[in-house]
Amino acid sequence: MLQLFGKVKELRLWLQRFQSVIPERIMRPDDANIVGNVHGGTILKMIEEAGGIISTRHCNTQSGDRCVAALARVERTDFLHPMLIGEVAHVSAELTYTSRHSVEVQVNVMAENILTGSKKVTNKATLWYVPFSLQNVDKIIEVPQIEYASPEQEEEGKKRYEAQKMERLETKERNGEAIIPVISPEEYTVGFSQSSLIHLVGPSDCTLHGFVHGGVTMKLMDEVAGIVAARHCKTNIVTASVDAINFHRKIKKGCVVTVSGRMTFTSNKSMEIEVFVDADPLVETAKGKYRAVSAFFTYISLDKDGKPLPVPTLKLETQEEKKRFEEGKVRYLQTKAKRQAEQERQQ
Amino acid sequence: MLQLFGKVKELRLWLQRFQSVIPERIMRPDDANIVGNVHGGTILKMIEEAGGIISTRHCNTQSGDRCVAALARVERTDFLHPMLIGEVAHVSAELTYTSRHSVEVQVNVMAENILTGSKKVTNKATLWYVPFSLQNVDKIIEVPQIEYASPEQEEEGKKRYEAQKMERLETKERNGEAIIPVISPEEYTVGFSQSSLIHLVGPSDCTLHGFVHGGVTMKLMDEVAGIVAARHCKTNIVTASVDAINFHRKIKKGCVVTVSGRMTFTSNKSMEIEVFVDADPLVETAKGKYRAVSAFFTYISLDKDGKPLPVPTLKLETQEEKKRFEEGKVRYLQTKAKRQAEQERQQ
Amino acid sequence: MLQLFGKVKELRLWLQRFQSVIPERIMRPDDANIVGNVHGGTILKMIEEAGGIISTRHCNTQSGDRCVAALARVERTDFLHPMLIGEVAHVSAELTYTSRHSVEVQVNVMAENILTGSKKVTNKATLWYVPFSLQNVDKIIEVPQIEYASPEQEEEGKKRYEAQKMERLETKERNGEAIIPVISPEEYTVGFSQSSLIHLVGPSDCTLHGFVHGGVTMKLMDEVAGIVAARHCKTNIVTASVDAINFHRKIKKGCVVTVSGRMTFTSNKSMEIEVFVDADPLVETAKGKYRAVSAFFTYISLDKDGKPLPVPTLKLETQEEKKRFEEGKVRYLQTKAKRQAEQERQQ
Repeated sequence: MLQLFGKVKELRLWLQRFQSVIPERIMRPDDANIVGNVHGGTILKMIEEAGGIISTRHCNTQSGDRCVAALARVERTDFLHPMLIGEVAHVSAELTYTSRHSVEVQVNVMAENILTGSKKVTNKATLWYVPFSLQNVDKIIEVPQIEYASPEQEEEGKKRYEAQKMERLETKERNGEAIIPVISPEEYTVGFSQSSLIHLVGPSDCTLHGFVHGGVTMKLMDEVAGIVAARHCKTNIVTASVDAINFHRKIKKGCVVTVSGRMTFTSNKSMEIEVFVDADPLVETAKGKYRAVSAFFTYISLDKDGKPLPVPTLKLETQEEKKRFEEGKVRYLQTKAKRQAEQERQQ
Repeated sequence: MLQLFGKVKELRLWLQRFQSVIPERIMRPDDANIVGNVHGGTILKMIEEAGGIISTRHCNTQSGDRCVAALARVERTDFLHPMLIGEVAHVSAELTYTSRHSVEVQVNVMAENILTGSKKVTNKATLWYVPFSLQNVDKIIEVPQIEYASPEQEEEGKKRYEAQKMERLETKERNGEAIIPVISPEEYTVGFSQSSLIHLVGPSDCTLHGFVHGGVTMKLMDEVAGIVAARHCKTNIVTASVDAINFHRKIKKGCVVTVSGRMTFTSNKSMEIEVFVDADPLVETAKGKYRAVSAFFTYISLDKDGKPLPVPTLKLETQEEKKRFEEGKVRYLQTKAKRQAEQERQQ
Repeated sequence: MLQLFGKVKELRLWLQRFQSVIPERIMRPDDANIVGNVHGGTILKMIEEAGGIISTRHCNTQSGDRCVAALARVERTDFLHPMLIGEVAHVSAELTYTSRHSVEVQVNVMAENILTGSKKVTNKATLWYVPFSLQNVDKIIEVPQIEYASPEQEEEGKKRYEAQKMERLETKERNGEAIIPVISPEEYTVGFSQSSLIHLVGPSDCTLHGFVHGGVTMKLMDEVAGIVAARHCKTNIVTASVDAINFHRKIKKGCVVTVSGRMTFTSNKSMEIEVFVDADPLVETAKGKYRAVSAFFTYISLDKDGKPLPVPTLKLETQEEKKRFEEGKVRYLQTKAKRQAEQERQQ
């Protein structure tokens, strides 16, 4: 009898998952670079849209204020396989944890070649959303709690919640730096490849309430990181992974957004690029420019057959650059060790 | 035993349907008019994308040439409810019939308000696709046959197939006309509201093989029809239905497309607009301009609360206009009779 | 001491300039024609966005009404080199003059090939903006004055200001004409290539206050001019220059914009196309259609290696066409003489 009850619960949970978001979209030429690889930024944007829909839907399943879920954080994301133009992207999302004021969503992306029928998982991402009231934009509402298949599952979710909360606080402090332009820099230095773009936030970048979709911001960040990487190694490059991205503050319609990127670390076959997003609410003089988001992107360089190429070593000129390079190396080695551990566990 | 076999078959068919396309997308400000109603053209574009994915996928489930399914015809489509900005559109597609060289797809669109949880069906559309070989763009390949739940189901599909084939031939013959501009026309005449736009076909309008997506063409057609309707009644207007659309010839990348619309008929609360699509392959001097598509769109005029408004009667000036008005009236009365018959059947 | 003060002033002015807008964007397939040349209209749109941001930011550096800078005029702009898909566009903007109610901005565009590292200047444009209050859309606010490096610099700016003011008044008077359609025209005549498009102004075409971005209008103008040029010579064409564009009246969200183009002049290797923009505020019955913008675009025809091709001579049929051809010839010869003088000065 207990077993049957377990089954029913499992089924309900399975259905709960099933009702989650399943968008499909054909990848168009504009989504890709010149050799046909879909930009990491386009994939991040789809992931965020799916996460935003499932979170907003869930947080409105109770009485009280209607609300919109805003992206607060994306956990480290690996791009397992490239997606190509003409493939169909499937994005599925599942609620995996709820704290009092936030929702954890797991999003998976699959690329399907509809000509051959082959399918492969390209991304698995974990996102955190916070629901803001539509009646009062600064009020965070309480999240209806989900049921878990087992107490262990809930316990694990709680650990992930605590860990990300800690990390968000840490990154917030690091956020004072700016990228200063260098005049006639030498090749392979940080100054040589560093780049920035500005973007005036328009209506179609925004949610119903005039705040920029997290996915739009991530797409811009990937664009800048990609330019930095291409300038450094002058080859075709693709996003390999994105470190945790924290959304410290919301960005409003009408702001000018400055997205800046600089290379922090190179291994033999990868480049790490730090990206900052600063928002400038042009018309509101009271508030100044502020740092809204920051993150690390890792890129690899590919030859014509899609095989990884060696990357020129970054030339370090200042103490600051050397320090950042060492920190990047630590992140690189940690990720490498984690990946090896996972591979061993799977064997 | 036989009963069980029937169940298994049903289950397989159910799964076959289940494998169909289920995209989801939040409607953005750009998808809608100034009062927040999503453009009929945006919905038609989503419908066609879903139909194209499921057809292309199905026609590649056999060995031999890889192929892409091109839209050949859309059956008459009603817009049952308006869709609003901020709602999530769900599009589901199902293969319902296969002839030797064509595929029938049924697509349903549902609008979900993720804040209140309410869902309503906004559209049901039937589309016909023809698979073209990727090795030879002019070769139509054979379609793998689907299995039917019953012989009756197959028989009904065959009838629909024959009926649309007949109708396609008929419209092809009507297609010689052009819209001639009128200088300083009087208000409420055909010449007063008639409009046309030109569009240079770009890469993102096209399939992998450089032919315009049927959905892109339908979106342009709805845009012109909407402008004709708005010019006539100077109010907020929405698409109420689209008559069968036949795609006579493919349109290639680099063509200039001219989309022209003129009002043909007005009832008390609706306007019928005829839309032509002509393609001009600029650079290839050998071939001239040709008529690629034509269709009738029906619009209604809405007040601020979304209630239908009376429409000014079309002023007819020529024998041709009177003839077209009478033909439009016949279509209007036929549709009205059909709808009443359906309502009675459902009671 | 005085010298030092001068240096400090220079430095401050340099910083002021430096804080100006530096966007960067990779050129996508949709930005370009079928052989990979980025549309002139896409570049004009980027230029205007940069100019709008720096002007709006500057005009909000004082207390009082918040405002948005609207484009009033673009001086003659040459496209010095084609920009290609995959290149990175750099746009930098600098405030060069302020009158009581207007701002002059100098925008430079550079194309960088990030694979080879090569950079070249593709455009230099001068734009004039007028700041409108956000509290009252019809009120123009006073512009905070910039400091000049020298009295001469200020004097030169004033001269440019007076000259453009005069020219704006002149063009305003010329603006009564309309493009009348021709039935079954002969090849190479004006009627053969003349074209027009209609566009329903949507939310993403607009500023925060519901007025069309000048850059959006210029992109549509370039699109029509390009189609006229391609219809005339049936080859790959690119924008070579744009004569001064005056924005006589603002265009509001919800308007239908009609953009019409006709060829006015051909030299051996160039075509001049006159483009009109008319706005029709559909729903507001009180106001009728009005002429919002007009300008001359010059196009050249290119072979597969990007070398200029001879252009078929325009066949003139009416006295009006002959008059416009002669006027076009004068503009052509003036520009040619100016360019030669500049080249000599630089040697």
